[in-house]
Amino acid sequence: MSDDKPGQFTRDEITSQADAWAQLIPIVTEKGDKIQQLFEGIDEVIFTGCGSGLNASLSGAPILQTQTGLSCRAVPAAEIYLFPKSALVPNRPTLAILLSRSGETTEVVHALDYLNDQGISVLAITCSESSPLALRSDLALVLSPVTERAVATTRSVTGMILTTQLIAAIVSDDEAYMNELRRLPMVCEPHMDAFHDLGKSIGQNKDLTKYAFVGSGPFFGQAHESQLKIKEMVLLPVDAYPTLDFRHGPQSNVDPHMLVTVFISDSAFEEESKFIHDMKSLGGVTWAICDRTDDQIRENADYILEVNSGLGELVRGVLYMPAVQYMAYYRSLSRGLNPDEPRNLSYWVDTSS
Amino acid sequence: MSDDKPGQFTRDEITSQADAWAQLIPIVTEKGDKIQQLFEGIDEVIFTGCGSGLNASLSGAPILQTQTGLSCRAVPAAEIYLFPKSALVPNRPTLAILLSRSGETTEVVHALDYLNDQGISVLAITCSESSPLALRSDLALVLSPVTERAVATTRSVTGMILTTQLIAAIVSDDEAYMNELRRLPMVCEPHMDAFHDLGKSIGQNKDLTKYAFVGSGPFFGQAHESQLKIKEMVLLPVDAYPTLDFRHGPQSNVDPHMLVTVFISDSAFEEESKFIHDMKSLGGVTWAICDRTDDQIRENADYILEVNSGLGELVRGVLYMPAVQYMAYYRSLSRGLNPDEPRNLSYWVDTSS
Repeated sequence: MSDDKPGQFTRDEITSQADAWAQLIPIVTEKGDKIQQLFEGIDEVIFTGCGSGLNASLSGAPILQTQTGLSCRAVPAAEIYLFPKSALVPNRPTLAILLSRSGETTEVVHALDYLNDQGISVLAITCSESSPLALRSDLALVLSPVTERAVATTRSVTGMILTTQLIAAIVSDDEAYMNELRRLPMVCEPHMDAFHDLGKSIGQNKDLTKYAFVGSGPFFGQAHESQLKIKEMVLLPVDAYPTLDFRHGPQSNVDPHMLVTVFISDSAFEEESKFIHDMKSLGGVTWAICDRTDDQIRENADYILEVNSGLGELVRGVLYMPAVQYMAYYRSLSRGLNPDEPRNLSYWVDTSS
Repeated sequence: MSDDKPGQFTRDEITSQADAWAQLIPIVTEKGDKIQQLFEGIDEVIFTGCGSGLNASLSGAPILQTQTGLSCRAVPAAEIYLFPKSALVPNRPTLAILLSRSGETTEVVHALDYLNDQGISVLAITCSESSPLALRSDLALVLSPVTERAVATTRSVTGMILTTQLIAAIVSDDEAYMNELRRLPMVCEPHMDAFHDLGKSIGQNKDLTKYAFVGSGPFFGQAHESQLKIKEMVLLPVDAYPTLDFRHGPQSNVDPHMLVTVFISDSAFEEESKFIHDMKSLGGVTWAICDRTDDQIRENADYILEVNSGLGELVRGVLYMPAVQYMAYYRSLSRGLNPDEPRNLSYWVDTSS
């Protein structure tokens, strides 16, 4: 698939993220009025997608709910039409936000058709303007700057998460939050080499043969997406868990061959710092991804990504992804795989035939 | 920990489930009036817990929402007090259902305190009547018949799931549904030997070195709980995924050493049957757990648990757990581990000191 060396598409798409985000922001903000109109009278928001689209939903739902006070939840796209009674709340004015890079994924298109039949408004987030999702939604945000050639998503998923954040800023009419979001490309760009170098260093550690990513609140979606990158590109065992729930069973598997990566929030900072200490005590290799450290983190984290952006926990999530993506990319190469061509996978899933 | 041979507690607790459920049902139903009173004026239900308590929440929320039309969601207990803005919906009369075997887990007790401070009513589901959870909730359902000595939950988690189902029957005042639930112990008992034999057969297959459990709608909680049993007792790689989302990345890891277990619903029967076909085509070993099969399932499933109960998809979930629990138990023994004493784990998690 790649023209050049293995993984060239993936690598270019990771590296270009800051620039791609900068191009994406005005595409969303210039539709601010239309977005606000869609939310008028809405009492319930359903985020849905598959794979990375679902992971972006898992990030977007807690962020939008926290910013707006609207009830928001993320559900797998198939549940919308196969289990509508548990996916959709009856008698509540609902807006559905559908996220799909291709806009053609079978479950997303079925969900779209179901929602249209029910008269539920659909806001589409996709990279393809000619897709069924873009064409048959009430409003489509077409994220052309983050479109991709690699199978595994990198900049498209951070672009989708950023889009949900921009929507949250627009709907809550929160200028301070919007200004923080606008800073993301500028904050990211100067760090990109460091993200690369750290990701490469961890990705080339062949002693690590299993992975866990944990995050709380707005970071669980990031943890789940990180897990997916390892599954797709690296083909090694990997888990995603809500941070503190990892203690309730999964920590039984922690040993010196497991990298436990912790996305550190503001709201649960103390608990997450202690969590890193505990995982280190169990013999795990630990990676703290955070905006700032404390003594406990510095003492117990084998790897640290400290961004020092000053950005809030509802803003900075996407900054944490490039280093993880580089890590997966280099771990894939170190196993002799081609990151651009995951096993058993295609650009999008079509099971309609 | 065991008096006798390794895993004796776990095995006895698995085997006794039908009888334990029969004893549990009247404990819940005799509090029917009090349960109905708690739901008066409620517009939003939050299920929460840790580990198996969270998995029972993931089962209970879609079932209660489907039965009653009330908005129900499951969140990790820590999120209640660390991320209340994304866990709780403001300005909606809310009932919290807290599930904890011990009733003493640090996050559950913190969540309880937070909810009490907020004036949110708490319905407790626990095995310990003297626990903080039982003592400080508005109503406690104390499930003494399913209490356990083993660290890993088996009958307590099916008891908790059954309790959420009984609550759904009471709140929806659905006599037909209640009657199906009452049949569960009688339906289960005659199958218990078959559940054991199949679980043992799969658990003794040492060619299987990684596992995936998938379920949709009311079965996702079961899939997640099954995953936890492998993590705790077996210490081998294992995933839980919403069924159709497994195609969006995780299927890259399917090979002849992976057992893909599919919990089969009614609402998504055709899609799940095709899913088994697809996983078999990718070289995986497949286990269909269902009430009835079709030709496609019979052709593509390496293992089949077909219960033929005639019970609906909102009823029969707990019937599927004993075979999975036996499988984890025997796989644990085949690896020379003691199922009663998972590595790095204790009976409950206390991080309060």
